[in-house]
Amino acid sequence: MPPAPPAIDSHTVRTFGRGDAAGRILKAALQAVDPYRAVQSALHLSGSQLHIGSWYCDLQSIRRVLALAVGKAAAPMLEAVCALPTLPLQRGVLITKEGHTPPQPCHPAVEIYTGGHPVPDERSLRAADAVRDLLADCRPDDLLLCLISGGGSALLTSPAEGIRLADLQELTGLLLRCGATIHEINTLRKHLETLKGGNLARLAAPAQVAALILSDVVGDPLEVIASGPTVPDPTTFGDALDILERYALRPHTPPAILQRLEEGRAALLPETPKPGDPLFANVHNQVVAGNLHAARAALQQAQAEGFHPLLITTHLQGEARHAGALIAAIARQIASSGEPVPRPACVLLGGETTVTVQGDGLGGRNQEVALGAVEGLAGLPNTLLICLATDGGDGPTDAAGAAVSGETLARARQAGMRPADFLRRNDAYHFFDALGDLLRTAPTRTNVNDLALLLMP
Amino acid sequence: MPPAPPAIDSHTVRTFGRGDAAGRILKAALQAVDPYRAVQSALHLSGSQLHIGSWYCDLQSIRRVLALAVGKAAAPMLEAVCALPTLPLQRGVLITKEGHTPPQPCHPAVEIYTGGHPVPDERSLRAADAVRDLLADCRPDDLLLCLISGGGSALLTSPAEGIRLADLQELTGLLLRCGATIHEINTLRKHLETLKGGNLARLAAPAQVAALILSDVVGDPLEVIASGPTVPDPTTFGDALDILERYALRPHTPPAILQRLEEGRAALLPETPKPGDPLFANVHNQVVAGNLHAARAALQQAQAEGFHPLLITTHLQGEARHAGALIAAIARQIASSGEPVPRPACVLLGGETTVTVQGDGLGGRNQEVALGAVEGLAGLPNTLLICLATDGGDGPTDAAGAAVSGETLARARQAGMRPADFLRRNDAYHFFDALGDLLRTAPTRTNVNDLALLLMP
Repeated sequence: MPPAPPAIDSHTVRTFGRGDAAGRILKAALQAVDPYRAVQSALHLSGSQLHIGSWYCDLQSIRRVLALAVGKAAAPMLEAVCALPTLPLQRGVLITKEGHTPPQPCHPAVEIYTGGHPVPDERSLRAADAVRDLLADCRPDDLLLCLISGGGSALLTSPAEGIRLADLQELTGLLLRCGATIHEINTLRKHLETLKGGNLARLAAPAQVAALILSDVVGDPLEVIASGPTVPDPTTFGDALDILERYALRPHTPPAILQRLEEGRAALLPETPKPGDPLFANVHNQVVAGNLHAARAALQQAQAEGFHPLLITTHLQGEARHAGALIAAIARQIASSGEPVPRPACVLLGGETTVTVQGDGLGGRNQEVALGAVEGLAGLPNTLLICLATDGGDGPTDAAGAAVSGETLARARQAGMRPADFLRRNDAYHFFDALGDLLRTAPTRTNVNDLALLLMP
Repeated sequence: MPPAPPAIDSHTVRTFGRGDAAGRILKAALQAVDPYRAVQSALHLSGSQLHIGSWYCDLQSIRRVLALAVGKAAAPMLEAVCALPTLPLQRGVLITKEGHTPPQPCHPAVEIYTGGHPVPDERSLRAADAVRDLLADCRPDDLLLCLISGGGSALLTSPAEGIRLADLQELTGLLLRCGATIHEINTLRKHLETLKGGNLARLAAPAQVAALILSDVVGDPLEVIASGPTVPDPTTFGDALDILERYALRPHTPPAILQRLEEGRAALLPETPKPGDPLFANVHNQVVAGNLHAARAALQQAQAEGFHPLLITTHLQGEARHAGALIAAIARQIASSGEPVPRPACVLLGGETTVTVQGDGLGGRNQEVALGAVEGLAGLPNTLLICLATDGGDGPTDAAGAAVSGETLARARQAGMRPADFLRRNDAYHFFDALGDLLRTAPTRTNVNDLALLLMP
């Protein structure tokens, strides 16, 4: 069993009337998306039947159980599978980032690989070879359990014919620098490699495939997370070319890549498997942990603590400071009219904001959301906002986020600090550090993006 | 009776399944905050008793009824008072902006003045003289009805001793240009003039005072709207000086103003009347129309139309495009999990966003909120967002706002337009104009800031 996530602590949380409840609510959220627990909760063995959501399979009719765990959370996810006593694992492949490997293999038949991240490297190719070896000679009476988490796209790389690793590395660098979304980056990857965009499921056919997915992409789009190796791909070669044009990357793109995409668009190459492809009749994909799971667990705990729970969104995106201002706007409405939810209110927003860095300060998305809320929350009695990166690391700092209350502005002014100055420098870290309001948790082993918890008892 | 506000029309509203309902919902919102109707709804005559909210007064015990209407909506507000047949108006003063005067006086005893706006001028001083004359010799058996709306701060100006009109004009210009909030601008005004920050109520004492207020400031802060002439003032001379320092305006501030503020801070001058001052025992302040009234009327109509209504906030502020992205994030959550409110859902956000202009395009706050939502709403079936300036004028355009649906992005692409390009140029007007999705209403005579209506049948 994994350790419980550490407590959320700070001056404001400590001195807040219901700070203990806030801590328990966030703890519930993080525990719900712990990769080990998430997989454990999703797998149900009943006699010889293995149930995963609405899917099930009779293990007595299965010749071999294979496991493929890929991504930053691969180790704890596979550990949960290995902990199932009656699941007869025949062979497993674990591919993760350096530093994320397990202290010891959870099963003698598990091979461990590390790959490059966020830019793939030679090791990523070797991991792909191991996957191809694992999936060779699959039969209908084989069961492949896939355990997929963020980072999988880079960790497991297998260039299509005619494409070199160096081409992919170059393109990945271009895409990461130009501001392309993860949807766009992975659309390219799916059309330049052989295991992404449903192609891994094609390789495993005719085996039964059950994929348990930990989502690190806002909205849990199955076809995007780790480039959707077991998921029908709605994108096309044409889409991939459009993206290169959108960011004016065509002149910088390696010729072999352009050639492949053009040939694909001309239907000279096979597309990735599309929605409706009969191949997916044997494939079950299930998100076992994502922002919504964390939010639901938080709100359930909040209700148990006597709060009226309300989820505003798990799709929060856009500039961090503006998200903070908006959360304050909701708080003011609760204070003045009991809308959108009456006190005692617990409002939750999840997602992943961005910070357009213009200053030379220190901070992270969540700290900047919190700083953006300071002015708007000022003076509201009995109001606490906690902004937290669920992986425990917010930006290039040692903090996971920050806490704000209606008194934060007054405390800051007393300390001679003005939020606007710190926003201008993107220096939320030093603002909250001076107030004792940074939240420091150890790494949580999971990542379902960010949570903003507003408590108004 | 004022005419009903015009219908909301556009390609997307017309072709949307429940576009008719959207029109009725917004019509209900605008009607609820029509200044004439708002005052009419707030005043209740029962025999000889005049009721305004929880306040009432027996007109039989009243010697004189005086009326002072100041602000951009002064004419229709005073018209509603004059329409009360049994209210014996003795004398009235109406102060409004040029172009906002009534076609004919609603009562023979009403004097009409115009003043400068947003920078006060000589006419503003003459209006102040008329107010002082109106309030001379008030007795406890006099009743003063104040009808206050936005713009009142500049339209009615009476410099304190030692301050010249030119000083106030210069400072107003500085404050408007430096990005100071209306809270800050009015804190200065209240400490440099003789009728603001509760001082008008002091002048009217010992008369009974009932102030009916149409709010054009987010959150309806009574002490800010029209600089709160009848409202206890929580701000101080010290606050006023702090604001000059915050925006580095001290070196540019006229010396007479600095001298007064410094003397005030040193307690050599009387402060504005503060909360708790017994003077306010005879004063009743009531917001008769504001963003919340419009929102409530909209949601009530939405419920009658079969929608589940939810008010997220009436305090929406911050950069317009980010507000749009956030509204889209809420829409996606409704589509995926029925939170924060299940379908058929009507979600409302009110407030006043800002646009940081960086391009040379055409647009307004509401059009830019709508444009900021286009990408996030893309593909959502049966989803309509309408962003509307309640005064009917959004930015320097002939439109009041714009409409977006889940199909807008596809329609834009077909027309060769990308939202990001138009956002970069702050050119929302031409984006929506090309799609036939600008909303054009006539001036509505009112202003309770902006509304964003999200309908998901």
